[in-house]
Amino acid sequence: MTAFDELMAYQRDTQALGQIAGRLGWDQETMMPRGAAGQRGQETAAIEAVLHARRSDPRVAEWLEKAEAPDEAGAAQLREIRRSFERANKVPGDLSRKIAQVTSEAQGKWAQARADEDVASFLPVLEEVVALKREEGQALANGGDVYDAMVQDYEHGTTGAQIAATFDAMRPRLVDLRARVLEKPKPKGLEGTFDTAKQMQLTRKLAKTFGYDMAHGRVDKAVHPFSSGSGDDVRITTRTSESDPFNCFYSTIHEVGHGAYEQNIDKAYLLTPLGRGVSMGVHESQSRIYENQLGRSRAFTGWLFDQMCETFGAIGVEDADAFYAAVNKVHNGYIRTEADEIQYNLHIMLRFDLERALMSDDLAVSDLEAAWNDRFKADFGYAVDTPSNGVLQDVHWSVGLFGYFPTYSLGNVYAGCLHEALRRAVPDLDGQLALGDTTGATGWLRENLQCHGGLHEPRETIRRASAMGPDAEPGPEPLLRYLETKFAGIYDL
Amino acid sequence: MTAFDELMAYQRDTQALGQIAGRLGWDQETMMPRGAAGQRGQETAAIEAVLHARRSDPRVAEWLEKAEAPDEAGAAQLREIRRSFERANKVPGDLSRKIAQVTSEAQGKWAQARADEDVASFLPVLEEVVALKREEGQALANGGDVYDAMVQDYEHGTTGAQIAATFDAMRPRLVDLRARVLEKPKPKGLEGTFDTAKQMQLTRKLAKTFGYDMAHGRVDKAVHPFSSGSGDDVRITTRTSESDPFNCFYSTIHEVGHGAYEQNIDKAYLLTPLGRGVSMGVHESQSRIYENQLGRSRAFTGWLFDQMCETFGAIGVEDADAFYAAVNKVHNGYIRTEADEIQYNLHIMLRFDLERALMSDDLAVSDLEAAWNDRFKADFGYAVDTPSNGVLQDVHWSVGLFGYFPTYSLGNVYAGCLHEALRRAVPDLDGQLALGDTTGATGWLRENLQCHGGLHEPRETIRRASAMGPDAEPGPEPLLRYLETKFAGIYDL
Repeated sequence: MTAFDELMAYQRDTQALGQIAGRLGWDQETMMPRGAAGQRGQETAAIEAVLHARRSDPRVAEWLEKAEAPDEAGAAQLREIRRSFERANKVPGDLSRKIAQVTSEAQGKWAQARADEDVASFLPVLEEVVALKREEGQALANGGDVYDAMVQDYEHGTTGAQIAATFDAMRPRLVDLRARVLEKPKPKGLEGTFDTAKQMQLTRKLAKTFGYDMAHGRVDKAVHPFSSGSGDDVRITTRTSESDPFNCFYSTIHEVGHGAYEQNIDKAYLLTPLGRGVSMGVHESQSRIYENQLGRSRAFTGWLFDQMCETFGAIGVEDADAFYAAVNKVHNGYIRTEADEIQYNLHIMLRFDLERALMSDDLAVSDLEAAWNDRFKADFGYAVDTPSNGVLQDVHWSVGLFGYFPTYSLGNVYAGCLHEALRRAVPDLDGQLALGDTTGATGWLRENLQCHGGLHEPRETIRRASAMGPDAEPGPEPLLRYLETKFAGIYDL
Repeated sequence: MTAFDELMAYQRDTQALGQIAGRLGWDQETMMPRGAAGQRGQETAAIEAVLHARRSDPRVAEWLEKAEAPDEAGAAQLREIRRSFERANKVPGDLSRKIAQVTSEAQGKWAQARADEDVASFLPVLEEVVALKREEGQALANGGDVYDAMVQDYEHGTTGAQIAATFDAMRPRLVDLRARVLEKPKPKGLEGTFDTAKQMQLTRKLAKTFGYDMAHGRVDKAVHPFSSGSGDDVRITTRTSESDPFNCFYSTIHEVGHGAYEQNIDKAYLLTPLGRGVSMGVHESQSRIYENQLGRSRAFTGWLFDQMCETFGAIGVEDADAFYAAVNKVHNGYIRTEADEIQYNLHIMLRFDLERALMSDDLAVSDLEAAWNDRFKADFGYAVDTPSNGVLQDVHWSVGLFGYFPTYSLGNVYAGCLHEALRRAVPDLDGQLALGDTTGATGWLRENLQCHGGLHEPRETIRRASAMGPDAEPGPEPLLRYLETKFAGIYDL
């Protein structure tokens, strides 16, 4: 065996163990008996320790030294393995363990603080998390920018400054669009109660309609929808609310975007570093384009309207146009995960600016709530009423996810680019979607983006799929054009 | 930290990883998408390799050398760790990998051969399995008896000769009892179809009735019922057949016996070698006493009759006495897993004698089918009609389980001993069971046996729980007395 082959065999076992750890997470959110949480914590810690030891094993350095890539994919494998090895060895083991321990504690305190509407009880542990993550960021940055180093974990090749520039270009146009839309009369929403068993039936049909492969996946309920796993075992979850079936259906379509990306990666990359979505931003571009540019299009919602009438009888809106307006209703609200396509990005920009300031020490944890509330008032025009609707609404910071939030909006930006290229490539897209046929769109995404997994770096992945020139950067213009056109139509702007 | 503490911390991680491997097995039989089998094989191999490396790690030897047990439980922990370490190091890694590979292949060939009724297509790979397992047995036996060495994996402290002596004492009395019962008129069976959703409802009620803790477990369907996991996450499965609800209910009660044993072990032993059932035979004693001595008693079936009538309406038998006879119907049949309490043991004895002869080379694989058929005819009085009703009916040998079969009947023998002690300790047992109250019985088993986990060796565990003298051996006499009395009553012998 060559050094390359030995390294890849080792790597496949590491990836397999990573898949097992992921499946434990899935089990925890879907199947685990409630009394098993303590034991599960010990199980998770044990397998994470095995994974960390394997990723930082000195033999990996020896293999990397000697390995010669047989081809382009091999070179990309080595690039990913090297990056993972260097990351694992840059952060001292004690610091990683301390972060795992403190964030585990912080997550519990966050949940309690949110339930109690008590920010003060959460701040001391958040202070610890911020300090530890900053220390980790410094170890990763090696003298460079701490926040940039953190972003690399989720979106390799993108800097905080690049994100800031993108967001700065988006913000005024989104604030303006939002204001113009909210001046208009509100569209009618759905009415009635919607049997949750029937929702699950239709949601499974929707998953298949968007190309999700049930032979290599399954759909279950969870409190927070997610997608889990790579390769031949990619599971998604959704949730149901009797009064709001859109929550179920669009959660499913969103997660199918993530899940289908994983399922459609070239099987030659199975259980290798290339055999999974290349970054959080590119992942989110898939979930968003499935959910929004396809799933919330006039064409597709026409088909969905018929499906819902067939499944539930009268649903409170009269025709497909009214249904389309209901699906795309823009409304005031405090909560990021409930926001519409326009305002979602404003929620993200707020978080991005605050977490970047926390990491550069320009904002103290003790001033975080005031900063949040001021910014929210400025962007949305009304005041946060309670902490659970403000600074305590998201779990991310409590578990140490700094640098992650912006990838949600990067995903929207990328989806905008892909959507323009897709429309050029499939001129009859709306005709197909109106029949509930997504194969033109999902097939194009599979062949131009999903199948490549981690072969190319994130921005290069988007650039190639969108047929941009080698010097072009995926920017926000296509997304903004799409949003302005779409909502001008719905709201008669 | 002392060497003992370090060893125990290491061991807890190993046990946690073992629990994860077990949960993967559960997932595979209950939740896994059908297309994920190949990837799962790689995942399982990866975690098994991690476990093997940890169990045979030279550091364990160093810790064992230095460790001083702080108390009786600590000494038992060291005993179990030493045994596991020695076993892991006795068998060459190459041989273990080869066995894993060949048995994986053999299992597939067995399933195909059984479907095709084609013994010849299975024999070559079985030949390989037998040769490899014999080689493993020789490595374990270190000059001693190969079959004895194999039995130690499932029932430590018991020899093939001891089992043979026990079985020799049982066989004539069981053959005689069987013959006398089968001369009598057959009791009426259930009639009708039984909604499977209602079966699952009642089966969950039964599980709780027998003390299964749903906060630390769950009940799902699987093709073959099993129990999985230890400590705070112990899951069981059952199956449903529209025409045969007893299959569902008694599979559940059986698996609850296994599951409750694991759930009831002292939490001080959580994720340690003592924190799981001590042997297959003792485990089976719990599943059998729950299923048979309690679940199939006249007293409990009286309660179950009412439950079934309430759930299903008319069930085809008139009263509780007829129901009791239906539950305990003795009938001809080829299949071990469908056998009644009397004949089950005859099925085991047949397998025990054949596998022991295979391992000592007194029987060639090519002669196995003929030997099976001759012995079956001799014990049961009629000829095997097809291989799937004969030598191909069980998966065990294809996956290399030699030395495992006898633990099923040892479990029955142990259950007989425990049952006599239980009747002495809880004089009003039948009065309680008649009300569907198992707490007297299950509480006694929990306190006298289950809570101790692996603290005492298997036979010592039974001896203590049954309040036998230190020199007494758990023998078949109580089981035989119980069977003879019970079936004399039902069949008016």
